[in-house]
Amino acid sequence: MTNPRYDVIAIGNAVVDVIASCDDALIEELGLNRGGMTLIDADGATSLYAAMGQAREVSGGSAANTLAGASMLGLQCAFVGQVCDDQLGEVFTHDMRATGIDFDTAPLPADSGEPTGRCLIFVTPDGERTMNTFLGAGQFLPAAALDEDLIASAAILYLEGYLWDPEEPRRAMRRAIEVARAAGRKIAFTASESFVIDRHGDDFRAMIEEGLIDILFVNEHELASLTGEEDFEAGVAAVAGKVPVLVATKGPEGAIAIANGERAEVAAEPIEKVIDTTGAGDQFAAGFLSGHAKGAPLGECLKRGAIAAAEVISHYGPRPEVDLKPVIAEKLS
Amino acid sequence: MTNPRYDVIAIGNAVVDVIASCDDALIEELGLNRGGMTLIDADGATSLYAAMGQAREVSGGSAANTLAGASMLGLQCAFVGQVCDDQLGEVFTHDMRATGIDFDTAPLPADSGEPTGRCLIFVTPDGERTMNTFLGAGQFLPAAALDEDLIASAAILYLEGYLWDPEEPRRAMRRAIEVARAAGRKIAFTASESFVIDRHGDDFRAMIEEGLIDILFVNEHELASLTGEEDFEAGVAAVAGKVPVLVATKGPEGAIAIANGERAEVAAEPIEKVIDTTGAGDQFAAGFLSGHAKGAPLGECLKRGAIAAAEVISHYGPRPEVDLKPVIAEKLS
Repeated sequence: MTNPRYDVIAIGNAVVDVIASCDDALIEELGLNRGGMTLIDADGATSLYAAMGQAREVSGGSAANTLAGASMLGLQCAFVGQVCDDQLGEVFTHDMRATGIDFDTAPLPADSGEPTGRCLIFVTPDGERTMNTFLGAGQFLPAAALDEDLIASAAILYLEGYLWDPEEPRRAMRRAIEVARAAGRKIAFTASESFVIDRHGDDFRAMIEEGLIDILFVNEHELASLTGEEDFEAGVAAVAGKVPVLVATKGPEGAIAIANGERAEVAAEPIEKVIDTTGAGDQFAAGFLSGHAKGAPLGECLKRGAIAAAEVISHYGPRPEVDLKPVIAEKLS
Repeated sequence: MTNPRYDVIAIGNAVVDVIASCDDALIEELGLNRGGMTLIDADGATSLYAAMGQAREVSGGSAANTLAGASMLGLQCAFVGQVCDDQLGEVFTHDMRATGIDFDTAPLPADSGEPTGRCLIFVTPDGERTMNTFLGAGQFLPAAALDEDLIASAAILYLEGYLWDPEEPRRAMRRAIEVARAAGRKIAFTASESFVIDRHGDDFRAMIEEGLIDILFVNEHELASLTGEEDFEAGVAAVAGKVPVLVATKGPEGAIAIANGERAEVAAEPIEKVIDTTGAGDQFAAGFLSGHAKGAPLGECLKRGAIAAAEVISHYGPRPEVDLKPVIAEKLS
């Protein structure tokens, strides 16, 4: 087993977020799944976009957001995801590379009929985001697009549950897991959303039982869906022994982690005003990984996660807008 | 002369702003024109974009920004500008319509080789924006694209100096001026930038001398370029008698207006922190017009401008992010 070239390689959705603030009445009127993520098709994206107020476009995608944060925090990162050779694909690619991430998955041709994916995000005055994702090109990431040497060259393979839903990327991720394990690497997995667990929970539980997941990120809702336990602690107890590292977030109530029998907790980092919760979990994972990669104590890993999450919910968009390194250094000192 | 259907119709650049924060060293290293606007070609846009940090995309364009603000403040608005039938064109079009603006200029076909324009904006820690504009499709707005009935149906025809630079839109604007004047409408003109005045100042001065401009918006630098007077008051004196309404802004030092011999002044509205000055002048014009359209006293028109400008410089992006109506109502009461 050679020394890893990357700290983290992630496979995830390659989407651009289209973010508009809105009032609660519009969520109601459009019948949206408030606070959740819903998959929509091209027609749905067109009609929903027409109903949306003026928006800003910011590169998104759960695992991609985590990598952007992790890269800004000093980790060597690479990304695998499917864009189209169009303007939004150019935006997504630029933003990944601009944060120092290696991203070389070949885009689909412009005339493929599968444009780069986008996520229409309605942000209500309470800062809650309601996401509607048109996966576009993202759902056609083929296993053949994987550079297996690249996968094998990263200490951690990071996978997002969202991408487990479409068939081709799921096959690609299964193959990536084999490659990473054969190379003696670790697998980190973020459960992403309850609806994904409702559809693919059996897969996830099987992977956990087989010991294929080394670091599991869940929030309290996903933990409940995954374990069938409504009670948070019961959920933690059900899964903690089966993964070497469990990180479970509870929104404004902070987060816990259990690693090799040790348990640590962290409170949510206080902030002035929650503007947009998009990316909170993604940046929590980024902060956690930035500590984990250098062997920091479990409590510090959690604290890093809480600080990164606090930054991202204080503005629109799912990626850090300030240099997180000095922010974290100051808050840890 | 029939009653106008619109309060304002604007002809302007149709561009999407690509905004990234950066440190002063990068401005230096890239040799950018700090604080100014520079036209770049497609190759320049590609290489500059590659040097840019992670960005957000927000619809821009000077006159288009003003209309967005004016529309949010209750004016009936229509826009004429040239996008391409591509994703950025879709973004620009959506954002115009989402603020209630009628915008129906036919886009150039996707295979025209002229994509929708974009403006790469580097924002330094002092909040100053350095703009680099690839006009793309915008510079090909033909006079034939004008709906002359539409032009004639607006109380005010609002033109931006930036668009005076490329030849086709300049011809279109000259034609629009004729149409508007024949219909007994007013012409508002924003000088946009010193470099435009350096190139086309003779045109602008001739239009002013001929009495073709009813409302002139300038900042202190543009006023100096236009009049050759370094001293602000000397500049004001040189032009005030030649336009029915003169609005001259001075950045953090506020603004003055002179209309039919009456003079009013306003201080800049205090804000906590200047994040991004992009769109400050555009929103000043929007606020001013929202008062002017309903015959508000000159001092109130200026105050509305100052409040709108203060909102837009307190966040990234050139258009209001909060509902300006209640903000202005509260500050005026």
